[in-house]
Amino acid sequence: MASGTFISFEGGEGAGKSTQVRLLAQRLEALGREVVLTREPGGSPGGEAIRELLVHGAADRWSPVTETLLMYAARRDHVERVIRPALARGAVVVCDRFADSTRAYQGAGGDAPASLIASLEEHVLGATIPALTLVFDLPATVGLERASARGGAARFESKGLDFHERLRAGFLEIARREPERCAVIDATASIDEVSRAVWAAVGERLDLA
Amino acid sequence: MASGTFISFEGGEGAGKSTQVRLLAQRLEALGREVVLTREPGGSPGGEAIRELLVHGAADRWSPVTETLLMYAARRDHVERVIRPALARGAVVVCDRFADSTRAYQGAGGDAPASLIASLEEHVLGATIPALTLVFDLPATVGLERASARGGAARFESKGLDFHERLRAGFLEIARREPERCAVIDATASIDEVSRAVWAAVGERLDLA
Repeated sequence: MASGTFISFEGGEGAGKSTQVRLLAQRLEALGREVVLTREPGGSPGGEAIRELLVHGAADRWSPVTETLLMYAARRDHVERVIRPALARGAVVVCDRFADSTRAYQGAGGDAPASLIASLEEHVLGATIPALTLVFDLPATVGLERASARGGAARFESKGLDFHERLRAGFLEIARREPERCAVIDATASIDEVSRAVWAAVGERLDLA
Repeated sequence: MASGTFISFEGGEGAGKSTQVRLLAQRLEALGREVVLTREPGGSPGGEAIRELLVHGAADRWSPVTETLLMYAARRDHVERVIRPALARGAVVVCDRFADSTRAYQGAGGDAPASLIASLEEHVLGATIPALTLVFDLPATVGLERASARGGAARFESKGLDFHERLRAGFLEIARREPERCAVIDATASIDEVSRAVWAAVGERLDLA
């Protein structure tokens, strides 16, 4: 069975996840752990090919249900070919976005049925679920402003403020329902403060020393 | 509610479906019906973009589960944007491959779990199921020989004879379980004979005059 540790970072656009994923990976490597730093959608050659379909084009290029299925196709490839092999050899997998992003973006933000998403989690992921999920929280307006300054996954950023507010509420609802897996991080703080909060959550909840 | 008629053609490689899809469309148009001739994977701009990922590359580029999810993403786009609108305006939709191809190729031919495929049919298709499915049957060796002479979806053709024999058995099993929806057509016969058999099945089972 898997002996590694699976950590995911979740949250809306411009929350600073990518920076913090890298900082956490550096601290874990300094402890002598093998760290696999990866992201979704993408993370494997097949997943990245599917990502190209997801992040480009008009906001309504894909309906929420189609988008959910594409996300899960990319996720399955990533899980089979990167995440499970890494966990099996004892690595720490640190992933920028995972299944909660589908619940929030396509479920809470779009209108993909929760029953479809739950069925995909069960059939497609099985036991490959993060041990710890860090939910980066900040107001949608702040996140969108940061994201537009940076450039990035333009298709999702173009979906409007209402969408991004539903998204934020969706992530907080996931954290409220699964407090043992999820830690909410205040993403409005400075990079150093956020990094300390992430490290504290990892230390409290996982045994990685 | 939908007032049109949905007909799908199914079967392995080299069964002659594409030719017969066109011949049936011509006969239905001669009766004054609007016919939407389409295909899977593909059939809509989004579906065709996903098709590009599915038909190229090495035989093991995608696992059966990932392939199932990609097929359903393409199918959902096709259903939402082409098939349902056509049925809603009363057209006859004639589709070269549909959901049974996933049951056969990724289920019987691959090892995607039947429970995943059944869940996708329920959540993703709902009531959008063909009124008539013509299952083109011929020995796998004959079909592969014809397909290799023609050129085509090389990735699936490269999966080997065992795969294609499981595929044939998979299609026949679908027809055996759902005899009211499915008619098996002997695809070893001449183009004219197959066309007559298709027309007879349509006349017996549907009221399209």
